[in-house]
Amino acid sequence: MNFCSECGHTVTRKIPEGDDHLRHVCDNCETIHYHNPKIIGGSLPVSGDRVLLCKRAIEPRYGKWTLPAGFMENDETLAEGSARETREEALAEVENLQLYTVISVPSVNQVHVLMLGDLVDDKFAAGTESLEVALFKEEEIPWNEIAFRAVHMTLKKYFEDRKTGIFPVHNLEIERW
Amino acid sequence: MNFCSECGHTVTRKIPEGDDHLRHVCDNCETIHYHNPKIIGGSLPVSGDRVLLCKRAIEPRYGKWTLPAGFMENDETLAEGSARETREEALAEVENLQLYTVISVPSVNQVHVLMLGDLVDDKFAAGTESLEVALFKEEEIPWNEIAFRAVHMTLKKYFEDRKTGIFPVHNLEIERW
Repeated sequence: MNFCSECGHTVTRKIPEGDDHLRHVCDNCETIHYHNPKIIGGSLPVSGDRVLLCKRAIEPRYGKWTLPAGFMENDETLAEGSARETREEALAEVENLQLYTVISVPSVNQVHVLMLGDLVDDKFAAGTESLEVALFKEEEIPWNEIAFRAVHMTLKKYFEDRKTGIFPVHNLEIERW
Repeated sequence: MNFCSECGHTVTRKIPEGDDHLRHVCDNCETIHYHNPKIIGGSLPVSGDRVLLCKRAIEPRYGKWTLPAGFMENDETLAEGSARETREEALAEVENLQLYTVISVPSVNQVHVLMLGDLVDDKFAAGTESLEVALFKEEEIPWNEIAFRAVHMTLKKYFEDRKTGIFPVHNLEIERW
């Protein structure tokens, strides 16, 4: 951030009075600009003993496999955002969405929220951000080709929980690198 | 947003190519500025059969009771943010934090994440954003004086779950108004 989005003047990084974090503060109108973590919302679509993964057609991690997920938008709920991302990236519908993993990734100022869902009618296809979309059994998962650690952790938890049939919400963290 | 935070030129709201949401786009450098939901992180500190609430010393909802919570900061995890807010608003420490409610509030582009925690040593006092901090039994909760619906919902769930002693994570939504 170089300029104030309110008045267009330059900003300076400083700690405002009564605060303890460095902020971008406008040199003219004194607006304090806050920057906060973003939510990555998505789903883990399930069809019988298989889960749906998308091969990324965009950077970062072009060509790697991921769950359909992306930045949550304003004016939507977590479930709406997860369903939208699934629709966009995998041209698929999910139902019975339930919160599953909540993963803090402080190094990149993100919280990943993934919801378990039932894939509807086994219909899917590659959206514009995917090269390919496919269903995988546990033994078919390309573990070394998974795009993000939060996705890897979520898939691991899922196949672990499958053994008991109980899928509690997992609150996890990815260590700072 | 009136000006580009990158180059200081004016921005126009339009739908970028390949997108389907209105964004602020710079008329000069074409940077697309995204605005996403923010996370409100906090805790529900428990001491025996009582819970800790803070009386707000700031707007909105000056004078109303709330759980210690606030905007999650960059470079922290949900647990760190919850503990920090508890420290700031109630000068209290919480331990054994566990994820409890995750509440989408699409009308204000927020997701509230509240964690259950044990209040350490029954120590607390009003931070600068609180007029007063106190412990309440269920029958003492000032239900009509609770600052936010997400806090109200979380407290209701808590006293409901107390009957069974099981505190699953609740994923809730507050209807658009």
